[in-house]
Amino acid sequence: MLTELQKQVVEKYETLIARKNRTADFYNGVYERYDYPVLTRDHVPPFWKYDFDPAANPFFEERLGVNAVFNSGALYHEGKYYLVARVEGNDRKSFFAVAQSDSPVDGFRFWDYPVILPDTCPEETNVYDMRLTKHSDGWIYGVFCSESKEKEIDDLSAAAAQAGIVRTKDLKNWERLPNLKSSSKYQRNCVLHPELINGKYAFYTRPQDGFIEAGSGGGICLGLCDDIDSPEVKEERLINARVYHTITEEKNGSGIVPIKTEKGWLHIAHGVRNTAAGLRYVLYAFATDLNDPFKVIANPGGYLIAPYGKERVGDVSNVVFSNGAVVNEEGEIYIYYASSDTRTHVARTTVERLSDYIFNTPQDALRSNDCVKQRCELIESNLKILGEK
Amino acid sequence: MLTELQKQVVEKYETLIARKNRTADFYNGVYERYDYPVLTRDHVPPFWKYDFDPAANPFFEERLGVNAVFNSGALYHEGKYYLVARVEGNDRKSFFAVAQSDSPVDGFRFWDYPVILPDTCPEETNVYDMRLTKHSDGWIYGVFCSESKEKEIDDLSAAAAQAGIVRTKDLKNWERLPNLKSSSKYQRNCVLHPELINGKYAFYTRPQDGFIEAGSGGGICLGLCDDIDSPEVKEERLINARVYHTITEEKNGSGIVPIKTEKGWLHIAHGVRNTAAGLRYVLYAFATDLNDPFKVIANPGGYLIAPYGKERVGDVSNVVFSNGAVVNEEGEIYIYYASSDTRTHVARTTVERLSDYIFNTPQDALRSNDCVKQRCELIESNLKILGEK
Repeated sequence: MLTELQKQVVEKYETLIARKNRTADFYNGVYERYDYPVLTRDHVPPFWKYDFDPAANPFFEERLGVNAVFNSGALYHEGKYYLVARVEGNDRKSFFAVAQSDSPVDGFRFWDYPVILPDTCPEETNVYDMRLTKHSDGWIYGVFCSESKEKEIDDLSAAAAQAGIVRTKDLKNWERLPNLKSSSKYQRNCVLHPELINGKYAFYTRPQDGFIEAGSGGGICLGLCDDIDSPEVKEERLINARVYHTITEEKNGSGIVPIKTEKGWLHIAHGVRNTAAGLRYVLYAFATDLNDPFKVIANPGGYLIAPYGKERVGDVSNVVFSNGAVVNEEGEIYIYYASSDTRTHVARTTVERLSDYIFNTPQDALRSNDCVKQRCELIESNLKILGEK
Repeated sequence: MLTELQKQVVEKYETLIARKNRTADFYNGVYERYDYPVLTRDHVPPFWKYDFDPAANPFFEERLGVNAVFNSGALYHEGKYYLVARVEGNDRKSFFAVAQSDSPVDGFRFWDYPVILPDTCPEETNVYDMRLTKHSDGWIYGVFCSESKEKEIDDLSAAAAQAGIVRTKDLKNWERLPNLKSSSKYQRNCVLHPELINGKYAFYTRPQDGFIEAGSGGGICLGLCDDIDSPEVKEERLINARVYHTITEEKNGSGIVPIKTEKGWLHIAHGVRNTAAGLRYVLYAFATDLNDPFKVIANPGGYLIAPYGKERVGDVSNVVFSNGAVVNEEGEIYIYYASSDTRTHVARTTVERLSDYIFNTPQDALRSNDCVKQRCELIESNLKILGEK
């Protein structure tokens, strides 16, 4: 028998889960935005936060608050949409939790329990940003960031990051593999390619000089791995470099698991630039060759998604980030992206429209003068067409 | 006789002061938020900003604008609520001003004149963040940050900070004592304990390596002082340390004057972590032993108050900060907290509820894996209770 207060809190939660989403008043032809985030901290079940025992919790206070739900891995499987969210407690530690819906844009409800990963790394302090790869070997892999205290630097806030790897068949039972070995001790935003390349597993990596600073780290790399049970990439080849005065100037990193299409592998990654108010994260897209995934075959200039409206502000403002997208039987693509390290949104496009964007958007002309010429050509062509009316 | 414009400005101000506050649509069981800030720059009387002489100011322009009103010390005295606010002019200099109300949540009106402190420190450039301690010796002490140009570093923005000390009986006549001597030349967020400890005055301190960087500074300390008229803490003992990958990772500092309760001294402090978009300040709570205030007896994990909604953005975004709270005869606690170095809000709780939060919220489990186990125990216990419905 719930108390009046408990009932109110539960009803508010149920009302939120039942809320239908709707497309937002935003048009660019490439994708639709939605008015409501698909996951927020308010989507976390009240029984994850409050102790419902009135004797133990007479004031019905939160005992374990939740701060944010963001950076969700995504999976479409047998007609259901799954998000493996990064849930961050008020204590700043993140963990993973599966939310499920019949719809790609609303109704996501967390399973009763969050994910408990096998605790194989005693030094691991935090985990986050899982990419879910439905691999051709039959497993669903989760590649995530495993963060530990940086012991070699005398700074309490210094952290080291490695790629943690788990695999599962059902998102319930998770087998943990060793962390990925690579050239760098700062390795975030790693993604497992969904197929073997030359008979080998393949990881997108992003080696860095420091936890935050890319330093000499050149951008998104791809490396082959002989043995997934003892995962190591011995050689990382740069496939998508950071470029001066573009959206990737400060750093970049893989986002979603590449989407296989007739024309090539479609990638959505994040690019970062510095500003007087901190780093700005946007999402961009590119395509690689079906037969040679080391080769970029389309590289549209500029960003695909940037922080917009309410997305601009949060725990880490001026950030959009994605580590999950799904494709359904109709060729619809749902991109799950988080804003400002606080909440998870969805954008809808299709394989056709996203391909059109990637293959037909002009490349970055890299210099103001060339960019304005590029635009004037478009204008001139348009004015002819518009004059014909 | 006021001009039409002057009348409008004065009426707008009076309407603001008369506006009733109301609790916000926010529930966590621990405290209530309110829809409106209790003090903003618009609460500053127009006659502090405009010259009302039409001959001298024909366009009725602001002559001395006010930028922000935040970080207020607080006092409940003979049925009245007093805030000693940090008022920052458009020129970036802060000063103190007393606002008074019969209500803890609205109606705060500044006295005719701000506080003029005795000018005993010629090198002092700025003052801010006063903590008001109603001391058992009969005085009301104000401990604040006294900031001067750092002369030993060749950097125009380098500042040194010390704890300034004043005392008063009526918030009108202020006697200034020498600045607190301590181990560090960077000393902010100092708070005077309201009682003698072992017969001595006692200061919470926060020594730092630099003006912004905590460096090796370990956290909140407590030190005894033999003579309040020549104040010095010779030994500062760390009582509440910064901890890796928690809300205090980057730095922490005392906030309100501790609240004495049957169970212990209740503290509200601030914790700081770094992000890609700058520092994030949240408030947290802990309790110390009544008989041994050097000993922390309860240390709930995570934050008590974090920036929320409109609080997230301001002159220094992503900040909540408190240096004042009051308790009235009904055992209600009003926490005055500022958001983003811009405005002052109030949160309401009670001694009972805040104690329940501090003593019954689990400690930070420090590692993601242990935090998720902690949460799963709560979930399991709740699902049993909810299954009984």
